[in-house]
Amino acid sequence: MRPKAPQKDRRHFYPKPAGKRPEARDPERNRNRHAKPENWLYGLHAVQAALENPNRKLGRAVLTSRAAEIIGEKPLSRVRVEIADMDAISRLLPPGAVHQGAALECDPLAGADLDQVLEQAGEGRRIVLVLDQISDPHNVGAILRTAAAFGVAAVVVQDRHAPPQSGALAKAASGALETVPYVEVVNIARTLDELAAHGFWRIALAGDGPISLSQAAPTGDVALVVGSEGDGIRRLVRERCEAVAFIPISRAMESLNVSNAAAIALYELRRGTSS
Amino acid sequence: MRPKAPQKDRRHFYPKPAGKRPEARDPERNRNRHAKPENWLYGLHAVQAALENPNRKLGRAVLTSRAAEIIGEKPLSRVRVEIADMDAISRLLPPGAVHQGAALECDPLAGADLDQVLEQAGEGRRIVLVLDQISDPHNVGAILRTAAAFGVAAVVVQDRHAPPQSGALAKAASGALETVPYVEVVNIARTLDELAAHGFWRIALAGDGPISLSQAAPTGDVALVVGSEGDGIRRLVRERCEAVAFIPISRAMESLNVSNAAAIALYELRRGTSS
Repeated sequence: MRPKAPQKDRRHFYPKPAGKRPEARDPERNRNRHAKPENWLYGLHAVQAALENPNRKLGRAVLTSRAAEIIGEKPLSRVRVEIADMDAISRLLPPGAVHQGAALECDPLAGADLDQVLEQAGEGRRIVLVLDQISDPHNVGAILRTAAAFGVAAVVVQDRHAPPQSGALAKAASGALETVPYVEVVNIARTLDELAAHGFWRIALAGDGPISLSQAAPTGDVALVVGSEGDGIRRLVRERCEAVAFIPISRAMESLNVSNAAAIALYELRRGTSS
Repeated sequence: MRPKAPQKDRRHFYPKPAGKRPEARDPERNRNRHAKPENWLYGLHAVQAALENPNRKLGRAVLTSRAAEIIGEKPLSRVRVEIADMDAISRLLPPGAVHQGAALECDPLAGADLDQVLEQAGEGRRIVLVLDQISDPHNVGAILRTAAAFGVAAVVVQDRHAPPQSGALAKAASGALETVPYVEVVNIARTLDELAAHGFWRIALAGDGPISLSQAAPTGDVALVVGSEGDGIRRLVRERCEAVAFIPISRAMESLNVSNAAAIALYELRRGTSS
């Protein structure tokens, strides 16, 4: 890929050599001082998936030439591309962001509508995963990735307590933020009532539940509720569920990481109906 | 807890007010300029578990007074304690470390010996988890936590490619680094031969395997091999295994996060023998 003259083609961007004045040394830092952190996605999978999502409003992609090559011309034709080195991309992003040479400025996705999502869900058991106040973006991202892997119809979060659709969340989701309907609701308990009205069996996942998960999962549609690692599922949410189920673990460990617990639960729910 | 005079009790440390000379502004930064990052553990669970591990050689604990109260006097009686505020503790640690007011300087643990570990394993199916070149400390830490939750006899890593026992790894492990035998070996393939000689059935976990995990898990002792997300399990390691098994997932997602895949596999292996 041979770069064209910058006047003629604004898709390519080369940082100027370091000057002496501080503002000249790092043009990106000044330029993006006011960019919100959630406006940048990073990581090859996350950036590629966002570029392939027609619902994404895109700003610009800042890529190493290697990352541009991996992503390919077709997805990049939708967006203004700037080529930069790894360090220049790092300066656009939060410290320690593992960006793999790919960063994309874009608007957060609009939330999905639950009723609409349920109508569009494919064949077989429908599973809705409800996150009760899980705020860690890595956990929510990892859960989205697993939700995509197990064909979850929607991930429901409470809008006031959900983490923003940040780069860290999208990176952990590895593209699943673009494909799994992410439903932000005002009131989780009320949403569980609505799911019951749609015929969903509601299971809360909690270490102190009276039955094991494999006993709690009948056939049919399931709403699976998982809570934060610190506080678990809130009482009013838990009371809405038909069953409170545990994953059998050794007494040597108090609890599982929430994304691992969700992964095991989704595996168990799919195992029960597919094998 | 009332602080005593510093001359009489060195357990407490108060940072001096900010001065004008750079070296006076941040005493911790200079003092620990040469401390290796793996010398610090952080996070309440990780620090508490390390304090309760008699095999840990301890340096000093730097804690908020709240964290010291949560951890309690007994575990802290083994170590020199310095009380500091959240910011001072952050400056001891890598950027972004979620330390919860607790940091502990200590030596890495000596590796465990596989033969000894296998002899000491408890009753029931013995499971050894083999990590083939997984280098991300968060993944290895999360895997250790899950390994503890499912009573894994040992986690085996290749010494040249395993991540150091860093604070990030220990934080993700949530105390499991102290309780799960962590065996560092020179050659993974040779270790799999040794496990076979001990009667272990060796299963490689790979998305392109010919049989599903639930079909691949007989009764008896199992060595479960998981590989890095990028490159998977190396050929020479995979060839040592009796079975290559997959976890059934949707085509919408290329793969699972490696710690989620390990969690599902351990759940399946325990499910087969306990229910």
